[in-house]
Amino acid sequence: MSAQISAAQITWHEGSVTREERARLLKQTGCTIWFTGLSGSGKSTLAVAVEQVLIQRGHAAYVLDGDNVRFGLNAGPKILMETRGYSELSAKRFGLGFSAEDREENIRRIGEVARLFADAGLIALTSFISPYRKDRDAARAIHEKNKAGAIPFIEVYMSTPIEVCEQRDPKGLYKQARAALAAGKGMGFTGVDDPYEAPVMPELTIDTGKKSTHEAAAIVLNFLQQRGIIA
Amino acid sequence: MSAQISAAQITWHEGSVTREERARLLKQTGCTIWFTGLSGSGKSTLAVAVEQVLIQRGHAAYVLDGDNVRFGLNAGPKILMETRGYSELSAKRFGLGFSAEDREENIRRIGEVARLFADAGLIALTSFISPYRKDRDAARAIHEKNKAGAIPFIEVYMSTPIEVCEQRDPKGLYKQARAALAAGKGMGFTGVDDPYEAPVMPELTIDTGKKSTHEAAAIVLNFLQQRGIIA
Repeated sequence: MSAQISAAQITWHEGSVTREERARLLKQTGCTIWFTGLSGSGKSTLAVAVEQVLIQRGHAAYVLDGDNVRFGLNAGPKILMETRGYSELSAKRFGLGFSAEDREENIRRIGEVARLFADAGLIALTSFISPYRKDRDAARAIHEKNKAGAIPFIEVYMSTPIEVCEQRDPKGLYKQARAALAAGKGMGFTGVDDPYEAPVMPELTIDTGKKSTHEAAAIVLNFLQQRGIIA
Repeated sequence: MSAQISAAQITWHEGSVTREERARLLKQTGCTIWFTGLSGSGKSTLAVAVEQVLIQRGHAAYVLDGDNVRFGLNAGPKILMETRGYSELSAKRFGLGFSAEDREENIRRIGEVARLFADAGLIALTSFISPYRKDRDAARAIHEKNKAGAIPFIEVYMSTPIEVCEQRDPKGLYKQARAALAAGKGMGFTGVDDPYEAPVMPELTIDTGKKSTHEAAAIVLNFLQQRGIIA
């Protein structure tokens, strides 16, 4: 047990902590690594691998993905009614489904949370299909045009061909989407009956049909070193 | 410049990083310190002071407050239209104003983001009036009933009497609220014409009419030590 901290031991300066101070003390530059690509392209596997290696090396890093966002911050109406006691009206208004505008708002909130993490000095890794260029560019913009100075935004395009993604189909989603399409009731599934707009100038492009997760993780980590984000 | 990282140097295990691993490597337990109290009660001053001392000691900590949330994640309709190109309909739906349901959704999102920060191993400090018990209890519940194990949630009640807060009135808000009320058009301002529901069992109660910021910061830091959140 450490000794009690007395008021006299406490010092601070006016104003809030700068990003530079955080970076110096945390020994890393806060940033967002934005993984984008088709379902099955290897986004989550790679994001989780990079997160683990970073944490093993003592870095603060965190993956934002459907698992920790879709049931909380960006929950749908049903969850908001059941777990938060929202009225049907409030739940419909604030809850997110899968319409075009709901998907846009989903990605907007994720971009804002990633920016907060990066501003806090963390390495935020986001793993979402994020198929539309406009939405990804907006996430980039709030990082690069940040009031307190630009925050690095690293777009990683998972270019794994759809044939490879569809063959993997870990959750059977492509199969489901193809069947729905054949039956005349499209699901709006990215790559099947909804477009994926590939990044024009991503910081990195990785095809996990050709690279192992180890190789892919090394590519991302070396990029972070080159950029001076980690030592 | 460090040497290149090769794929062979990369190792990881199945599944994602546990909270215990994060805590061990970051040398702190992720948690949320939730400051609640009237406008002028000293929430932000104290949150920023505690954040600074923590960062000076090498801890990862971050204050969520109106400044970094109300213009981004929880922006109002106007900002969503002007900076994100949202349609009027989308902006009205997702943008947050100051109605009862909008305030509830504001605090809900902040609680969810704080939970993500704490899950990432950070010490999240939130500085919002958050006047309703129900909303604060919901924020506590998503921490304590977290799927991957309870996350410490430390409610700090700033009990500074309203007379003291109103005398400080740094932004002239009480004056404005009293004038509005006298003119018969209430603003719904907490403590003037909207209730503040004091916490029933807060972890800490601090009256900055009686304690200096140094003393108050020492109280919070000693509590974190006692709880084993920091060494």
